[in-house]
Amino acid sequence: MSSRIGSVVIESVRPELGAGRFAVKRIAGESCTVEADLFKEGHDVLVAVVRWRQISPAGQETEWAEVPMKSLGNDLWKAEFPLARNGRYQYTVEAWPELFATWASELKRKVDAGRDVRSELLEGAALLEGAAERARPSSAGHAQTLSDAAKKLKQPASPELIVVALSPDLAVLAGRYADRSLATQYARVLEVFADRERATHSAWYEFFPRSAVRDGKTHGTFKDAEAWLPYIQSLGFDTLYLPPIHPIGRTARKGKNNSLRAEPDDVGSPWAIGAAEGGHKAVNPALGTLEDFRHFCKAAEQHGAEVALDLAFQCSPDHPYVKEHPEWFLRRPDGTIKTAENPPKRYEDIVNFDWMGPGRETLWPELESVVLHWVQQGVRIFRVDNPHTKPLQFWEWLIRRVQDKHPEVLFLSEAFTRPKVMKALAKIGFTQSYTYFTWRNFKQELQEYLEEITHPPVSDYFRGNLWPNTPDILPEMLQRSGPGGFRLRVALAATLSSSYGIYSGYELCEARALPGKEEYLDSEKYQLVAWDLERPGHIRDWIRKLNTARKQHRALQLYDNLRFYRSDNEHVVFYGKRSPDGASQVLVAVSLDPHSPQEALLHVPLKELGIQPDETYQVHELMTDERRLWQGPTTQVRLTPDQPAALWAVYRFRRSEQAFDYYE
Amino acid sequence: MSSRIGSVVIESVRPELGAGRFAVKRIAGESCTVEADLFKEGHDVLVAVVRWRQISPAGQETEWAEVPMKSLGNDLWKAEFPLARNGRYQYTVEAWPELFATWASELKRKVDAGRDVRSELLEGAALLEGAAERARPSSAGHAQTLSDAAKKLKQPASPELIVVALSPDLAVLAGRYADRSLATQYARVLEVFADRERATHSAWYEFFPRSAVRDGKTHGTFKDAEAWLPYIQSLGFDTLYLPPIHPIGRTARKGKNNSLRAEPDDVGSPWAIGAAEGGHKAVNPALGTLEDFRHFCKAAEQHGAEVALDLAFQCSPDHPYVKEHPEWFLRRPDGTIKTAENPPKRYEDIVNFDWMGPGRETLWPELESVVLHWVQQGVRIFRVDNPHTKPLQFWEWLIRRVQDKHPEVLFLSEAFTRPKVMKALAKIGFTQSYTYFTWRNFKQELQEYLEEITHPPVSDYFRGNLWPNTPDILPEMLQRSGPGGFRLRVALAATLSSSYGIYSGYELCEARALPGKEEYLDSEKYQLVAWDLERPGHIRDWIRKLNTARKQHRALQLYDNLRFYRSDNEHVVFYGKRSPDGASQVLVAVSLDPHSPQEALLHVPLKELGIQPDETYQVHELMTDERRLWQGPTTQVRLTPDQPAALWAVYRFRRSEQAFDYYE
Repeated sequence: MSSRIGSVVIESVRPELGAGRFAVKRIAGESCTVEADLFKEGHDVLVAVVRWRQISPAGQETEWAEVPMKSLGNDLWKAEFPLARNGRYQYTVEAWPELFATWASELKRKVDAGRDVRSELLEGAALLEGAAERARPSSAGHAQTLSDAAKKLKQPASPELIVVALSPDLAVLAGRYADRSLATQYARVLEVFADRERATHSAWYEFFPRSAVRDGKTHGTFKDAEAWLPYIQSLGFDTLYLPPIHPIGRTARKGKNNSLRAEPDDVGSPWAIGAAEGGHKAVNPALGTLEDFRHFCKAAEQHGAEVALDLAFQCSPDHPYVKEHPEWFLRRPDGTIKTAENPPKRYEDIVNFDWMGPGRETLWPELESVVLHWVQQGVRIFRVDNPHTKPLQFWEWLIRRVQDKHPEVLFLSEAFTRPKVMKALAKIGFTQSYTYFTWRNFKQELQEYLEEITHPPVSDYFRGNLWPNTPDILPEMLQRSGPGGFRLRVALAATLSSSYGIYSGYELCEARALPGKEEYLDSEKYQLVAWDLERPGHIRDWIRKLNTARKQHRALQLYDNLRFYRSDNEHVVFYGKRSPDGASQVLVAVSLDPHSPQEALLHVPLKELGIQPDETYQVHELMTDERRLWQGPTTQVRLTPDQPAALWAVYRFRRSEQAFDYYE
Repeated sequence: MSSRIGSVVIESVRPELGAGRFAVKRIAGESCTVEADLFKEGHDVLVAVVRWRQISPAGQETEWAEVPMKSLGNDLWKAEFPLARNGRYQYTVEAWPELFATWASELKRKVDAGRDVRSELLEGAALLEGAAERARPSSAGHAQTLSDAAKKLKQPASPELIVVALSPDLAVLAGRYADRSLATQYARVLEVFADRERATHSAWYEFFPRSAVRDGKTHGTFKDAEAWLPYIQSLGFDTLYLPPIHPIGRTARKGKNNSLRAEPDDVGSPWAIGAAEGGHKAVNPALGTLEDFRHFCKAAEQHGAEVALDLAFQCSPDHPYVKEHPEWFLRRPDGTIKTAENPPKRYEDIVNFDWMGPGRETLWPELESVVLHWVQQGVRIFRVDNPHTKPLQFWEWLIRRVQDKHPEVLFLSEAFTRPKVMKALAKIGFTQSYTYFTWRNFKQELQEYLEEITHPPVSDYFRGNLWPNTPDILPEMLQRSGPGGFRLRVALAATLSSSYGIYSGYELCEARALPGKEEYLDSEKYQLVAWDLERPGHIRDWIRKLNTARKQHRALQLYDNLRFYRSDNEHVVFYGKRSPDGASQVLVAVSLDPHSPQEALLHVPLKELGIQPDETYQVHELMTDERRLWQGPTTQVRLTPDQPAALWAVYRFRRSEQAFDYYE
């Protein structure tokens, strides 16, 4: 006959993603808040703990630890545990009835009602004896205290005995040795991945080092690109993302403007990876050597930025893999290799891997070794090209493998595809994701989309990195907006999300497109470009101010704290961000009209800001460096194409004479 | 080296309750609609099926069957499978790429673009050969057709060959023998329980057969109670719920009005179960014999009603179990048995089982045998007393055991406790549940609560049975409302949910309470009551009309179809119900004011009713039997304490001269 078993019910532990199938994302240094619904039949006093441990990287593994949960009423319990270090953690919930505390609480009510409690005291004694027995192996002292108390309770009832029985210290000690065989464990062990800070807070600048000479003729090298670093630093970016730096195929190389015929001096698309000089682990000799690349990374670091590499898992037909590992590619019955295509489109300069065929058993580890190779060179951030065209299983496997060893490695998913697929990529492990922000221009659609991606459940796993342009996309909006559009779009990107990026040329308001397309004219994907960084009409200063605001104001560095507020003008969005401690509060108004001035009445969320209706507070507008006093729940703003955004840091006056040393 | 594997992703299969831990509830005869998010990298044509089977009762088990899912766009897929019979079903989702269809779709685009497709045709031939091989074991004919087509595709390309390759019949046949080794199965097998109709649509009448003589002195028998049946039938109820019918303990028997001292002729509380005459399987001799009970059940059936028994798993100290199975009860160290208590309250006439102690291994099966005993007598509905004071594991085990053999058995959870516990009881298997309706009197609170419990996710597992009174609760509201309150509360109960019930005396507007409590004065729980069914001021006719409306209008028989609409008066609620086919539509307005007339402007949901803004339609008010023509989106209603509710069946005029036989 089996002994007594527990009957606590534990439900709805959260955060929980896909029934525990995926890890939620948090930032190292924060804590992870866990909630659960807990109950049991009857009236027992319950105790619950969150059990947690770090499980990666291997060297940092910890033993299971426990933090007590607090009851918040309505059967809701809560606790937090620390994510002190970067890596993967597990957590679950366990709960049990605290029998001695239950007994004591009932005893008190019976005593208060004047009942005879002789029999009850004997019950209490038995409970204490059980606790003493469980205490014995670890603490003889505690065991003694408990069994002494048990002995007392067996004496004839007296008021002193009741005092002993109801002593809070005794309850605490008995609780420490509660009968955990009655505990219930939550059905699943859940995971949270604690990324380093850069995972959620990053300002990306994408550029082609081969254009670093900026004459449109001379192939730039990493050395030339180093000369570009002070410029990028002056703009204030912290992440430098380079398109693929590997040897570029010759076969079917694309010419300028994606033409099917390349001239002999055409440089080709960097995404057509692999040539006689090597594949994904090699550096294009025209850019320099591996040594040069490492030097560039260090130089970037000295200029306040981290280098991010492109991970484009596809091959030019000249890639060494093609000959060395025919089993990694799909072939047709006539023996020809299949090039990439989405009929009627063909990508003759690219062949795809056969991801799920039998060759995967060596292919996947080889691709992992590619990532680890660049990690060894010092790269910790990868922007992954078109991940949605490769199996999700592969990414889940790869990211887990890499982060198990190097939890500091971040992966940005460049997936512009259907919403559920983009979310699925984030769930299986991508640190950040491209978004539809690129095409969200108007108030309603912007608010709805940003609300969705910056709030749970989506923000538990998806971190949107907002790009107003990329080498692949010069949005329709920017083609016709003039500099006003460039200013407002980058202001939105830099303040709506804690991560955003631009592709170089944006700061110069480059807007020449292929007619009827969102492709750049004379796209840098296929040729060297002569960027004139001093070109009239540039918005370098505007971008620098945005990045400075982001660096100085904690509220702008957080992802899931975006709240939209009311503005009475359909072309003006008004929103705010706040750090959890309230020390940093920024309000933002952006005009969505690149052509004309717009005025709006803004409804300041005084309550959320902790400001009284009649209180005077200070705002510091960060783009103009103007300070003002505000009072009351509304304010009027005028935004123009030259100055389409206002960022107000909000400060309360907290000090008064009472805080002055000599007061009194 | 392992062969090719699949990479379809299947997410968010719904309905799914607690990550598949619990079954959702549906009604036999309906179908179960299943949705899932499905996708795969790249552009393959996908096929998905819902796999399903019936798993209980044992005799009805079926093999796994498959229904194809339809893509609804945005990666959402949907299918339904039939719940033809009462019982438990399993379902899951499986999906795979249809390679031949993918190939054909790409071929078409290439042909349209004028590309040379020689190599492609060979690929198609290989796919067909694969299909032929898979077809062979089950259909030599299909195998032949497929391999003939494969042979054709190997001939030199020609327009005729393209026609063969793109033949829809060929694609269908190839799809039938698709390579299912590339299929992905959803991670979990889910369950749905298909109850019989009464589970969701029931009108309960609770009465004490011992009061059937109605003189307050003579103990009624089942035979006497049979004489009450025509009366109950005239009221229109379909479920007759009897408080426990078992022998009642003598020890610590409660006297009138819950007094601690019973007089010798006091009948005691029927919930103090068990005496020398027997326990939970016995009939109180004062009521008659088991044979009399069976006769009563049959008589009830002839009067259109099914008998529901009370399942109160607790014992009087005189219960035979107490002596025969001391291991089923908790004892104190001094050997005394623990009686039920929630200090300072004591229930001296009741002892509780030790649910989770070692005795459970024989206790639980014994209690199952109690249920099966009554099932053998013909009882199919149980109202379970205070389930929240017993472990949820037990109920889950019991209901599953009983319904595995007898899926027609229904369990109503009498839990008035915290919201999460009430929901948890529904999740683990209770068919219906008592609700907070009993205390929701005003517009906002009524709407919010009913919205919550009649919509998913709650309505997937929780079916609220609305009781305006019970033997335990004479709500404050009814104590002071006069007959107007009784009319309006029963009208709400009967129309807001498809299941409701009253405790007898309600129709007589019995409102005498213990001062300051919600307990009836001279409660029938402790004594015989002399009900005068002809008492002035009764509302029998009002209730009869409500039950008639419920019987005649399908919309009122469904649970999850409640929608609230706008009424401009804070004391008038306005709502509607509609059958899925739209054939039955009922609008309801109820005044929440038992004292004064109330007028309200009601906003008729023309669009939901499928009525044009300028269309004239007919309403039939079911409480007054008045018919009117309405037009337009608003109507004015006047409700009075005598007539506090209006139920309009809505009919459109669909016929015109074109439908007349001789038209033209």
